[in-house]
Amino acid sequence: MNITKPTLLLNEQKCRLNIEKMIARSKHLNSSLRPHFKTHQSKKVGEWFKEYGIDKCAVSSLEMAKYFYNAGWVDVTVAFPLNVLEYTTVNDLAGKIKLSLCIESLETVQLLNDFLEHPIGVFLKIDAGYHRTGLDAENFEKIEPILQALKSNPLITIKGFLQHAGHTYRAKGKKEINKIHAHTSEKMIRLKNHFQNQYPDLIISNGDTPTCSVSENFEHIDEMRPGNFVFYDVMQAEIGSCGYEDIAVAMACPVVAKHPDRNEVIIYGGAIHFSKDQIQKDGQTIYGLIAEPERKGWGQPKEGWFVKKLSQEHGTLHVPDQDFDSIKIGDLLYILPIHSCLTANLMSKYYTLDGEGIEMFRYQS
Amino acid sequence: MNITKPTLLLNEQKCRLNIEKMIARSKHLNSSLRPHFKTHQSKKVGEWFKEYGIDKCAVSSLEMAKYFYNAGWVDVTVAFPLNVLEYTTVNDLAGKIKLSLCIESLETVQLLNDFLEHPIGVFLKIDAGYHRTGLDAENFEKIEPILQALKSNPLITIKGFLQHAGHTYRAKGKKEINKIHAHTSEKMIRLKNHFQNQYPDLIISNGDTPTCSVSENFEHIDEMRPGNFVFYDVMQAEIGSCGYEDIAVAMACPVVAKHPDRNEVIIYGGAIHFSKDQIQKDGQTIYGLIAEPERKGWGQPKEGWFVKKLSQEHGTLHVPDQDFDSIKIGDLLYILPIHSCLTANLMSKYYTLDGEGIEMFRYQS
Repeated sequence: MNITKPTLLLNEQKCRLNIEKMIARSKHLNSSLRPHFKTHQSKKVGEWFKEYGIDKCAVSSLEMAKYFYNAGWVDVTVAFPLNVLEYTTVNDLAGKIKLSLCIESLETVQLLNDFLEHPIGVFLKIDAGYHRTGLDAENFEKIEPILQALKSNPLITIKGFLQHAGHTYRAKGKKEINKIHAHTSEKMIRLKNHFQNQYPDLIISNGDTPTCSVSENFEHIDEMRPGNFVFYDVMQAEIGSCGYEDIAVAMACPVVAKHPDRNEVIIYGGAIHFSKDQIQKDGQTIYGLIAEPERKGWGQPKEGWFVKKLSQEHGTLHVPDQDFDSIKIGDLLYILPIHSCLTANLMSKYYTLDGEGIEMFRYQS
Repeated sequence: MNITKPTLLLNEQKCRLNIEKMIARSKHLNSSLRPHFKTHQSKKVGEWFKEYGIDKCAVSSLEMAKYFYNAGWVDVTVAFPLNVLEYTTVNDLAGKIKLSLCIESLETVQLLNDFLEHPIGVFLKIDAGYHRTGLDAENFEKIEPILQALKSNPLITIKGFLQHAGHTYRAKGKKEINKIHAHTSEKMIRLKNHFQNQYPDLIISNGDTPTCSVSENFEHIDEMRPGNFVFYDVMQAEIGSCGYEDIAVAMACPVVAKHPDRNEVIIYGGAIHFSKDQIQKDGQTIYGLIAEPERKGWGQPKEGWFVKKLSQEHGTLHVPDQDFDSIKIGDLLYILPIHSCLTANLMSKYYTLDGEGIEMFRYQS
């Protein structure tokens, strides 16, 4: 493969291993796996899941649901608060597939009732501690009338309670992840138990890659819905969800300038390729790590190297003294992204290490 | 126009006014305008420039140069350190248009000499204080041999010294912008003077929207190369480059959830639509402002409202108490982006207020 500009490489073997491991975990933990496809956004990677027997997925928009429907996915949960303005797409998809939506207010249920023409499943989006969005898991008084309103619509099957413990992204290590997981699970189980008599078939669906990757107790958590694990990234490695060797994507970027006086190298590779997510480590803001090149693909992060700044197309790398002279203009460096979801979203294709181009969904405004 | 999901609106009238004003400034300041097209990345917006007599532009990648060549632009500067791996594209374009490239090392010149087949212009990328990349404006000893190496190649015309004073993005108000501008201009002029006898035709090309928008002294600055001014954004308004009324783009985003208990509203509109650039204001991190809707388009920012968090598709808005009850699920809100360049780059189209779709360049990996 002749790489001449920022190119997102996908190590298929690592990716498949991540998929296999998560499937094995879901079986071992007795929690059904509905992988979130918003990370890879690709029909081809979806097919890899199918090869291992996965036949349902979650997505983050109705448009993405349509993309995966066109790739043969007929059991899809849109794990995002329903955007009522897209009612045409809802009806279109609901007429064709097992579509599940998330709602979190009576106001939305009323709007939904006004336009819905085909059967759908509905999850109540629950906030069990992340505080981004969702109904407070402990506010039964607010949840009850919403369940009743949903029940009164014969086109709606109430599926259960769905939450995303995004606060595990701020955790460090298995212990902290488990603490958050225990806390959110306890709330979700209490919620389910409260409504068990009236609504005996409701399930609990939990997201977030950290808990799904490391937590051992998924008792009563009927469904797990991780997404990022398919690629992982620097953020997940730092949280402790994976090892650096599990990261399945890297951006190959050309060196365009060198500044030995301040130990900096400029790559063609900026915010329009990586996005601007960053982590703080040892008092330093880090926008990416640089991996050792291998005969085919890449290995562990290079000791002491990191992306210290990103602007539109420029990436500024810090390179230790002893490595500086080895770098030449036109070299390709492998950058491990901080957040693979946002990085993948910015690119139009993946390339496998064999040079196969893999298309992906792109948001069409 | 039926907007149902995050949609980037472009107020053509404001945009044309921004273009007209910058052209008037460049004439008044006697500095030639070569607008940077990396902000709008659109053939159509390029045509608006042409209507006012502009026939040259700057871009940030060779691929973008190709896109604008296909739209009839035949005098293009790639204002980014030459990526030698794209030598095929360089030769392809150099055979067709007046192409100028930026280099900043002898190493790059040698690689360029090895592959160049057609005439090109070359700028020396100069660092006059921003310290992202470029040759130190005061290091004549380092610059001299590079000029000599360029001179020895008959295919190369040395165009001059090009710099981007990106540190004006950290300025506040005209006084601070002018101070940076005076400092960088002085360095650039000294550099030009030093080499004037040997290279009498070299020009100085300065970028950055803040100085081009407000500074009054462009004596000896032969060319101005601003890009962002075509749309402006919240960051530029806060710097003082423009007023809020000059911002020519806004993202229309649907309301999907409300949290009155914590004065938060969730919109469909996240990092995949806006990017994650932010500003700090009154101790608060701000990812966007919300504009007053008008009969057609939008007006000033709503007092006390702001985007306080962005994740992949979620935007979290802070809304003052007194305004909260007016918001309904399914409302469209107009979000003014922090950084219009990165926001535009994420979208596939603009829509004018008359509903006309405007295509743009997309990076193809």
